[in-house]
Amino acid sequence: MTEPNENTLWGRVIVEELVANGIDAVCVAPGSRSTPLTVAVARHPEMRVYSHLDERSAAYFALGRARRTGTPTPLICTSGTAAANFHPAVIEADQSRVPMVLLTADRPRELQDSGANQTIDQEKLYGDAVRQYRSLPEPAPEPRRLRSLRTTVCRAVATATDTPAGPVHLNVPVSKPLEPTPVEGAVPDDLPERAPLGANGRDGPMVRTTRGDRTLSASDLSTLADRIDRERGLIVAGPSNEPTPGRDALAELADATGFPVLADPLSGHRFGPHVGDRPICGGYDSYLDAGAWPDPDIVLRFGASPTSKTLRHWLRDADAAQFVVDPAGQWREAAFTATDLVVADPTRLATGLAERLDRSPTAWTERFETAEARYWDLAERAHGEQFFEGTVAATVASAVPDPATVMVSNSMPVRDLDRFGRPRAADVTVLGNRGASGIDGITSTGLGAGSATDDPLVVLTGDLAYYHDMNGLLAVGRCNVDATIVLVNNDGGGIFHELPIESFEPPFTDQFRTPHGLDFEPTGALYDLEYDRVEGRGALADAVASSAGASGTQIVECRFDGERSHRYRDRVHERVRESL
Amino acid sequence: MTEPNENTLWGRVIVEELVANGIDAVCVAPGSRSTPLTVAVARHPEMRVYSHLDERSAAYFALGRARRTGTPTPLICTSGTAAANFHPAVIEADQSRVPMVLLTADRPRELQDSGANQTIDQEKLYGDAVRQYRSLPEPAPEPRRLRSLRTTVCRAVATATDTPAGPVHLNVPVSKPLEPTPVEGAVPDDLPERAPLGANGRDGPMVRTTRGDRTLSASDLSTLADRIDRERGLIVAGPSNEPTPGRDALAELADATGFPVLADPLSGHRFGPHVGDRPICGGYDSYLDAGAWPDPDIVLRFGASPTSKTLRHWLRDADAAQFVVDPAGQWREAAFTATDLVVADPTRLATGLAERLDRSPTAWTERFETAEARYWDLAERAHGEQFFEGTVAATVASAVPDPATVMVSNSMPVRDLDRFGRPRAADVTVLGNRGASGIDGITSTGLGAGSATDDPLVVLTGDLAYYHDMNGLLAVGRCNVDATIVLVNNDGGGIFHELPIESFEPPFTDQFRTPHGLDFEPTGALYDLEYDRVEGRGALADAVASSAGASGTQIVECRFDGERSHRYRDRVHERVRESL
Repeated sequence: MTEPNENTLWGRVIVEELVANGIDAVCVAPGSRSTPLTVAVARHPEMRVYSHLDERSAAYFALGRARRTGTPTPLICTSGTAAANFHPAVIEADQSRVPMVLLTADRPRELQDSGANQTIDQEKLYGDAVRQYRSLPEPAPEPRRLRSLRTTVCRAVATATDTPAGPVHLNVPVSKPLEPTPVEGAVPDDLPERAPLGANGRDGPMVRTTRGDRTLSASDLSTLADRIDRERGLIVAGPSNEPTPGRDALAELADATGFPVLADPLSGHRFGPHVGDRPICGGYDSYLDAGAWPDPDIVLRFGASPTSKTLRHWLRDADAAQFVVDPAGQWREAAFTATDLVVADPTRLATGLAERLDRSPTAWTERFETAEARYWDLAERAHGEQFFEGTVAATVASAVPDPATVMVSNSMPVRDLDRFGRPRAADVTVLGNRGASGIDGITSTGLGAGSATDDPLVVLTGDLAYYHDMNGLLAVGRCNVDATIVLVNNDGGGIFHELPIESFEPPFTDQFRTPHGLDFEPTGALYDLEYDRVEGRGALADAVASSAGASGTQIVECRFDGERSHRYRDRVHERVRESL
Repeated sequence: MTEPNENTLWGRVIVEELVANGIDAVCVAPGSRSTPLTVAVARHPEMRVYSHLDERSAAYFALGRARRTGTPTPLICTSGTAAANFHPAVIEADQSRVPMVLLTADRPRELQDSGANQTIDQEKLYGDAVRQYRSLPEPAPEPRRLRSLRTTVCRAVATATDTPAGPVHLNVPVSKPLEPTPVEGAVPDDLPERAPLGANGRDGPMVRTTRGDRTLSASDLSTLADRIDRERGLIVAGPSNEPTPGRDALAELADATGFPVLADPLSGHRFGPHVGDRPICGGYDSYLDAGAWPDPDIVLRFGASPTSKTLRHWLRDADAAQFVVDPAGQWREAAFTATDLVVADPTRLATGLAERLDRSPTAWTERFETAEARYWDLAERAHGEQFFEGTVAATVASAVPDPATVMVSNSMPVRDLDRFGRPRAADVTVLGNRGASGIDGITSTGLGAGSATDDPLVVLTGDLAYYHDMNGLLAVGRCNVDATIVLVNNDGGGIFHELPIESFEPPFTDQFRTPHGLDFEPTGALYDLEYDRVEGRGALADAVASSAGASGTQIVECRFDGERSHRYRDRVHERVRESL
């Protein structure tokens, strides 16, 4: 098969290799310079195209898809500031280990520094936030160049999905014609013969990467098993894109060690069929600083640093051996009190340890179980007494169907879900952007995740995050995503009530809480969404359940006074302290 | 005067030096890590704070202010992706030489690479797009460190406003406490005495920069004057933040040479009191490729590369000596046909040349004047015949009051203003983001410019740019800007009708024109703006005039079929070809 010109050939080859590497969707922001890429994805029968008008939202949408599936959704944009709009999501992908493939069209090399329109310096635009950067050569129907191109695409996908996963950036300079306009002689008719494996490639990807996992030796595993065989042990499961270790392996490890599991809402372990009767704990943020907990002897830490500051500080101050398990070999522990780094695949490690241990739950474990039971009783009573922001998180956690995918915003929503989302034996996948923990791109990340799963999707967000990524709502119709967006609106930055700046007025209200006074209801009309305001736990639970079962996207807004919610959180916390 | 802690002192010193350097406003996006900076600007009586919730819009707002005034409006944000959201505007500032000072709060050094929350790698985040990058030391009440801090701020402002102007980035790591909480002993009571010129600084800026302009020697000037003393000469005034050369100097140069001036709508010369009877031309995009124009002998090019592709190509193909005048010494000419670079202050150069020349207009000049007269007659007739997108640009140019500031979007609006904005002897300042020519941040740039002038502000934008920066509309109320936003809505990327991709369907409509189907009227309710839809030239002129005279912000939407407008532009162009 031949192509009308070099650029069309170039685009086709790139897309063929993406598909051969198992990629079946891309996010495209329209533009002129990227025409060869856009035409190629639009023409490939196995490629689904999600078209976005705001590149920032596009990148977060792609991030959400990859966060949910583990497979990157490549991003295509034109030259210029379009590529810079991807930057926030690139940083989040880097920090939270989400695979991402960036294909930024560029103007030809000779226009660099010439004052030409829409020509910026795209070289290493994302700095060290990408795992790999390559500026492609300009398209030419040369055998070696085409083989190199195919190989580069395969390697880029492999790097993006390696451990740790992350973004890779291929910069793609092209000259005119950008359209599939026939150019006499540009692509010789006999190219397939002249360019073996270049023009037509292989049946399958040009090159394959087969990767092993980091695996401890049997003796290291036994040594480790001996070291953790202590009375008071803990498993801390921090945020992770997929349950780390896998849910079955965690269950085996918990059963074999008898250790309680402190499961971050973003760990993949707070909710899931493995929860059952196991001591999977979610109330630690409230009860760990209530009363005198003895120090643990040993802590096994999986995933990233926990969301709960209480837990982080408690671990920081504990006189314990702390093992950070990370397959990528990074000490993800910002308090610098961990004693050991274990570079190993978490699931293999957990299974290996479980095979070597056979302990029973102790008084230590029962202590956690008792605290959990009491805590959730108190939380339950609190929700019955007052509908506050924490009740929204609690209700989302309990009312979403099984299975469901929940995207939770940074700032207060994730903290509330941490405190009030009760462990549940349901296959609820909770996602959050906890890499850089920005409030940008939350809606788009959620909608992207929703586009990649058949699960009902709930986005739990605050008003600032909702405002920041309002443009992301265009994807509801444009990319055909059904969602329930639960909007906790406290008119500004409620989290600042939790910080000492609250007592400095001015500038507290004007510069920190920053009430915006926006009534978001018109966003329903703007994006053709159902917009409802609800109050009370039962009404919210009904709204979440009925929206999850209905088609179309519903915004469910709950309004609060941020300060009141903050005070009430404090009161609940006080009661927990008193009771434990 | 002492401060409760080191961070408060640090913030105060930074802000004092900004003020001492003539800066009286900042744009702040709320966040926690940036608290010392935010508190300091909020407390300084001579600092005006523009608070934004979306950092991307904040940065474009600051860009707009600086574009209008020449003085940077520093940007303050918290750590993490907030800083990455500034990136698109940083690139635009770099490319279009707009001063910008970025103050990004950062977490302390010891948290780098630790997995700590909201801790990203902010080192050189904007790559080579900034003129200067410095990561500040952590706050400490040490004499040398404080003097260094004051000096660094002064130098940063000087660098941002040097030739070429552009962005500078100061990264500001701080540890807790971030609030003005008293910390015993942190800032010694006797600090002013112990830290001469550090804690209290000087009366005025810590250090001053006095800069000379690039000035040709008398003999170089005479040589140049001899070289340009030719029959057929042209002055091409490309986009520039301020009229380049100054308007009086341009008038002198035009009078002394008798050369026609081809004035880009963004040059500062298409409109202005100096227009008068001079041969200031605006119709060249339409008539330069109509009929056989002889080549010029000599071209004097000021500013950036012109918006008009017709003009650029005509110059590319001309057998002429072409002088690019640039005070920063950059060959801003992407066709690579210019013969000479003149590195000199354009106003001094123009005045110097004018003193050495005394020519009269020739048949060459008359040819342009005749073409102009005929062209504007034809354009006038076209607007009377059909209300199309070009009529909107024409109407804005003719109906805005004197003085006025107009921000014009990229893509079709600036091209339409180039073709249909008739030269006018009124003080109309037209701004555009022609550095990277993105469609992002247009509304915010316009509102920022409007916040910095008493002129009535008109933003002429398309639907994609309007959508892309919808968040920027929050500044209307929050930053108290009055504007008239003229929205040319053709439901997607009308510019793609002008490109060859139009004839490839699919993917033309789905992936390039990308109709979004949005009805923007609810944005009026969302942001408390008056929203009107108008049709017809008279109604539009009335709406623009009455909005400019009224308080509050009005959105004036004109709906078009992009393809029809494109066809009609072609027809007008055909008529011009036939007539000339």
